[in-house]
Amino acid sequence: MKILPVKGTRDFYPEEMALHNWIVDGWKKASIRNGFEEYDGPIFEYLQMYQVKSGDEIVEQLFSFKDRGERDLAIRPEITPTLARMVNQKINALPKPIKWFSLPRLCRAERPQKGRLREFFQWNIDIIGEDSVLADAEVIFTTVDYLREVGLTPKDIKVKISSRKLLATVLKKIGVPDEKLNPLYTLLDKKVKLPAEVFSTTLTEQVGGEMAGRIIAFMGSQTITSIENIVKAEAGDQLEVAIKELEDCACRLNQMGISDYCVFDPGIVRGLAYYTGIVFEVHDIQGDLRAICGGGRYDNLLRDFGGPAVSATGMGMGDCVLEILLREKGLLDKKITSRTLDYYVVPIAGELLDEAVKLTAGLRTKGFKSAFSYKAAGLSKQLKNASEQNAKFCVIIGDEFKAGNVVVKDMASGQQKTVPLEDFLGNPEKF
Amino acid sequence: MKILPVKGTRDFYPEEMALHNWIVDGWKKASIRNGFEEYDGPIFEYLQMYQVKSGDEIVEQLFSFKDRGERDLAIRPEITPTLARMVNQKINALPKPIKWFSLPRLCRAERPQKGRLREFFQWNIDIIGEDSVLADAEVIFTTVDYLREVGLTPKDIKVKISSRKLLATVLKKIGVPDEKLNPLYTLLDKKVKLPAEVFSTTLTEQVGGEMAGRIIAFMGSQTITSIENIVKAEAGDQLEVAIKELEDCACRLNQMGISDYCVFDPGIVRGLAYYTGIVFEVHDIQGDLRAICGGGRYDNLLRDFGGPAVSATGMGMGDCVLEILLREKGLLDKKITSRTLDYYVVPIAGELLDEAVKLTAGLRTKGFKSAFSYKAAGLSKQLKNASEQNAKFCVIIGDEFKAGNVVVKDMASGQQKTVPLEDFLGNPEKF
Repeated sequence: MKILPVKGTRDFYPEEMALHNWIVDGWKKASIRNGFEEYDGPIFEYLQMYQVKSGDEIVEQLFSFKDRGERDLAIRPEITPTLARMVNQKINALPKPIKWFSLPRLCRAERPQKGRLREFFQWNIDIIGEDSVLADAEVIFTTVDYLREVGLTPKDIKVKISSRKLLATVLKKIGVPDEKLNPLYTLLDKKVKLPAEVFSTTLTEQVGGEMAGRIIAFMGSQTITSIENIVKAEAGDQLEVAIKELEDCACRLNQMGISDYCVFDPGIVRGLAYYTGIVFEVHDIQGDLRAICGGGRYDNLLRDFGGPAVSATGMGMGDCVLEILLREKGLLDKKITSRTLDYYVVPIAGELLDEAVKLTAGLRTKGFKSAFSYKAAGLSKQLKNASEQNAKFCVIIGDEFKAGNVVVKDMASGQQKTVPLEDFLGNPEKF
Repeated sequence: MKILPVKGTRDFYPEEMALHNWIVDGWKKASIRNGFEEYDGPIFEYLQMYQVKSGDEIVEQLFSFKDRGERDLAIRPEITPTLARMVNQKINALPKPIKWFSLPRLCRAERPQKGRLREFFQWNIDIIGEDSVLADAEVIFTTVDYLREVGLTPKDIKVKISSRKLLATVLKKIGVPDEKLNPLYTLLDKKVKLPAEVFSTTLTEQVGGEMAGRIIAFMGSQTITSIENIVKAEAGDQLEVAIKELEDCACRLNQMGISDYCVFDPGIVRGLAYYTGIVFEVHDIQGDLRAICGGGRYDNLLRDFGGPAVSATGMGMGDCVLEILLREKGLLDKKITSRTLDYYVVPIAGELLDEAVKLTAGLRTKGFKSAFSYKAAGLSKQLKNASEQNAKFCVIIGDEFKAGNVVVKDMASGQQKTVPLEDFLGNPEKF
């Protein structure tokens, strides 16, 4: 019987795994450096949890199933609902602000395409219980901190920032009725993916030509002040509040030293229904890829999941688009090795294998990464094996062993010395 | 709407996550130290893959579902079939022996109970393409290398070793027909979990009283020689081969220095159908827990999955029983922290928050784990925060800042010094 992998999933052979670990470890380090703590939840939850707030696109893409008790379950397509559930469960015991990150494996029943698979990994960071725009800025900073570390410059990527509050207020001022807002977000979010004409026609069908024109003008605004040409802010209204938040955020990002990565772009909408304030996406400047990541403020989600009204802001970055971009930019060219060794033990004849087994076990017991060849082979073949496994040293058990000695060879310099086996094993690092 | 987690799953809050990471990182380090390379596969595969060889218990416990193309899929209950599929796909390109490890998340639709959950993590190590018993011994050594490192001694645990080849040959010599072997393994594997009388009665029902008596005598044998009282080995027959393999394995384990952990126990059967040679389980000596891990040789699995006949041996260890045992033995008492910081930045007044934001971002940009308080608070409150987050140093922005200075406080010694901010940020480790 020959079995194939399922389309849209990946096999991580050691080489791909090393690259995957390099990406995930980078996410983890950036999170910890920025003061976030790791959490995780189950790979499956009650189906219902994803039907509440995740938006139609995600609900359509759920892998759902029943357990033996006929309960409806689903593999997680995102981790934010799990986060909301977990925080709600312990809301009173957790010191605020809660700064958590997670590196979940997620599944969505999509049609596999460039940068979109049915199984992927996502970096999530969230700050819960902090109203201040400083939290939004910190989420954006942490995102940039990682992207900058892996080598992406302001010439490669831009953080495009807007505000759902700004968008909602503008739409209402333009005359869009409340109940039309949510479906409209889904359409507006697709603006960059649709041909301009198709977008314009579809939008006109939904809200009429006059409103469509004003919405398109708003989404194309380059500056906050130019928005005032489309709708006017009045003292104390939500538009003024939203503009103030965006200005504060820009000020914080400047203090944090990442202004050169950031730009205001009211075309940023985010598809999910639950955003309430500042939203952002990171895009490659060439613009031929999907968003590298996205996030924003979602102040009502915990309440929607049965908890208290607690503010929150966060970001999610998948591994697929990121990897494509890093590869395009030549940032994965350096060798990411799947294996390194401290010592490779080489018995030069079959009857010395016993000694190689003993020595290797002894080195491993002392905590050194060590290996040996199962097969007796010539010295040059074995040195080649050692080199392929990136061994720092070879320990050769050969003729010298009759006198109780081994030869320790530095694989980088090629230098070697003969030392008593017992002395070597007593303190390998001395040699 | 209030949503609950699904029974038999776990939420990893930062504290539990830190413990989980400590276990998984230990597995990873032991694998790498022993020369294994990491791989991973998809969380779901075609349902059929698990119906071939995994044994009835696993098939009954599958979480299966259909995708939108009506294909039957299942969440992985073990990773060995994925390993067989992946190795088969690239069998000619992979240098042998293949030494791979994985740390998969697995799901089984079991009734949750002590040490058994519906979602768990499992350490897997496998050596493929090596016939020698040395490979089996190396798998056992790597297992013990980890268990010893986390503090388990020969007084806490025993590696119980037997051979499926030995068992099969003995059963056949006793007179069990070939077609009864597989169902019998499932029953014999349950021996330790069943009351002696129930086991004896059930076995007698299956094979008759005379055979049942001899099987029970065999499973209770303490030494290889005492088996010869039940069935005789003849020159060159499979029983002689099986005994020779067990003796060779014992010799290798002695060379590797772990004989004190190991014992021969023909009561070890392993439930899965695919084992062909040496099998083993690690048990706590008190014996009130399920097996901590198990493994063995499975030489036909790759062929059964449509590949060539390539020998293989491996081990799987779940995280649930391990964690219970480590807790019982007091080996988790040391504090495993979810968060440490290099620097905690303390503005002593609200108007200094801007400076705290700048300084923290600067430290993070240089790679230091840093945090600050969102809220202005008294110095003692903020030092308490820093201490709770295990900060090594506090950087206090206070009155000294008027002259461009900050106070760097060593949290362990309590010592502090006043330094110019610019000098500090230029080289924080100098202070």
